[in-house]
Amino acid sequence: MKKLINRPEDLVREELEGMALAHPELLRVNLEPAYVVRRDAPVAGKVALVSGGGSGHEPMHAGFVGPGMLDAACPGAVFTSPTPDQIVEATKAVSSGKGVLHIVKNYTGDVLNFEMAADLARGEGIEVEAVIIADDVAVKDSLYTAGRRGVGATVVAEKVAGAAAAEKRTLSEVAAVCRKVQAQGRSMGMALTSCTVPHVGKPTFDLPAEEMEIGIGIHGEPGRSRMKLKSAAEITGILAAAILDDLPFRRGDEVLAFVNGMGGTPLIELYVVFRELSRICEGRGVRIARSLVGSYVTSLEMAGCSLTLVRLDEELARLWDAPVKTAGLRWGT
Amino acid sequence: MKKLINRPEDLVREELEGMALAHPELLRVNLEPAYVVRRDAPVAGKVALVSGGGSGHEPMHAGFVGPGMLDAACPGAVFTSPTPDQIVEATKAVSSGKGVLHIVKNYTGDVLNFEMAADLARGEGIEVEAVIIADDVAVKDSLYTAGRRGVGATVVAEKVAGAAAAEKRTLSEVAAVCRKVQAQGRSMGMALTSCTVPHVGKPTFDLPAEEMEIGIGIHGEPGRSRMKLKSAAEITGILAAAILDDLPFRRGDEVLAFVNGMGGTPLIELYVVFRELSRICEGRGVRIARSLVGSYVTSLEMAGCSLTLVRLDEELARLWDAPVKTAGLRWGT
Repeated sequence: MKKLINRPEDLVREELEGMALAHPELLRVNLEPAYVVRRDAPVAGKVALVSGGGSGHEPMHAGFVGPGMLDAACPGAVFTSPTPDQIVEATKAVSSGKGVLHIVKNYTGDVLNFEMAADLARGEGIEVEAVIIADDVAVKDSLYTAGRRGVGATVVAEKVAGAAAAEKRTLSEVAAVCRKVQAQGRSMGMALTSCTVPHVGKPTFDLPAEEMEIGIGIHGEPGRSRMKLKSAAEITGILAAAILDDLPFRRGDEVLAFVNGMGGTPLIELYVVFRELSRICEGRGVRIARSLVGSYVTSLEMAGCSLTLVRLDEELARLWDAPVKTAGLRWGT
Repeated sequence: MKKLINRPEDLVREELEGMALAHPELLRVNLEPAYVVRRDAPVAGKVALVSGGGSGHEPMHAGFVGPGMLDAACPGAVFTSPTPDQIVEATKAVSSGKGVLHIVKNYTGDVLNFEMAADLARGEGIEVEAVIIADDVAVKDSLYTAGRRGVGATVVAEKVAGAAAAEKRTLSEVAAVCRKVQAQGRSMGMALTSCTVPHVGKPTFDLPAEEMEIGIGIHGEPGRSRMKLKSAAEITGILAAAILDDLPFRRGDEVLAFVNGMGGTPLIELYVVFRELSRICEGRGVRIARSLVGSYVTSLEMAGCSLTLVRLDEELARLWDAPVKTAGLRWGT
């Protein structure tokens, strides 16, 4: 296992301490229980956004904490749901009395723990709504999930809901924007290599030198199929067809296209994939009006990529363009 | 070889086409010869900045083209210097009559080809100055270099020189800012794994499962030493000591600290390294006043990292903070 780490049991704490040291103008980190809040939390008069999930997917979610996006992130152990006490304490730390939105990726542990935390927070008088993101078209159910898994659309949901909250919209309005991304977003991923969970010390799965896994989950959970390695054009074609057919996206739609790296894939390859995706969308009459290319929802050092398309309307495009200032996404401020 | 590519010979062209499709609001791409310019080039009344080098180091340099940073980037083939005609044509495309600064990483081919291009551009009446970046303390000379190699300080030099140019300062003033970064910046890197050059098809070097290479170059050229894998704390200690002793950085200095991923290393590990670097600097009385953590100077899918420290003064800090809008770095606009 070749990693730039110290003891596996210290990894998440040390990473959070590193984030606090690197971004003191943006973030504050609490360690017991572990959560990250924007430096100026709670922000008066604003709905607060809280997300979280297992670590190993950086910059998601702590890298999306800051003005225009999340108020708090709750990182669990690597590939492990955050505990209810993390989520409750984060919720209390960012609540300004205008309500708190929980943005939850659809994994069984995450959903249960966010539900429990929401109940506890409500018991303390905080209004909480939750939106479950379940955008991965690869499989109906999977190892850690009843229903579809939550992947790339989460980044878009957190960005646009964060912008809606920054406009001082109500909790139900912010939740509605978030649900619209969930309704109009679809994703699918693939892996060229496995990742290695630090405290396990060996690859999560074996993938022969000439094979890839289509429909991989972000914890290395199985996808749709193993097959011989193909070209970027063919791989993008397989992923894009599954996504485009599912909503379905239609001729004349405008979309946000997000090509995501899994952690071990260099940017040069992601742009090759974006080129293929762009050609495919053009062929279907779907116009890419906004784009994001980079490694934002990772699986440790896994090599591979995922594609996300979100159908845009005027509101979503405007909220996507709004200023954001986080460690992972930053523009316009 | 597991990569998201089509034919190796098409990789750079397809990547550039992907960049143009993903960032139409920022960039224009010319393919024959290959260069990338900011969309609104040439910008009247402003010194223009041109950089370039082999591909495979993305987002450097094309990802740094845009307002507040580079006017043009010239990508060579993978790990291969750009040709003089690329550089001349890019120089002409961005020249507004106020002079052009070439920012050149110190590799033999790059330096020769930029020199030849500068002579040709001068022959067409364009004033050109060049600054050579040679910040890598690992080795005195190396496979592709007489003198030190140019690595992470290049990103800082391009950012602050770009900000100086945006302030409409003269060519000699912009060059002076760039030289200050070169004079006050030091870097060193290490690799956990090799990368594979697509048209070669096998790893550039062999690195056993329990070993790492300290002082690696960004083309996989040899560093200072092979040794058994160590902890993040020990690795950071080795790199930081070499950097801190070299300038030397002194108690009371303020620095920009840049922890760079080599392409295959996930962000979670880079923050662990940043934490270690921060502790080491604190122990030396060196204050980290600005930071950058991410994969900005990559070596395809190599796993590993490099550290860069640049001693700051008020001018460099202000120029670093100035607005920038590129595919790879973006804030404040």
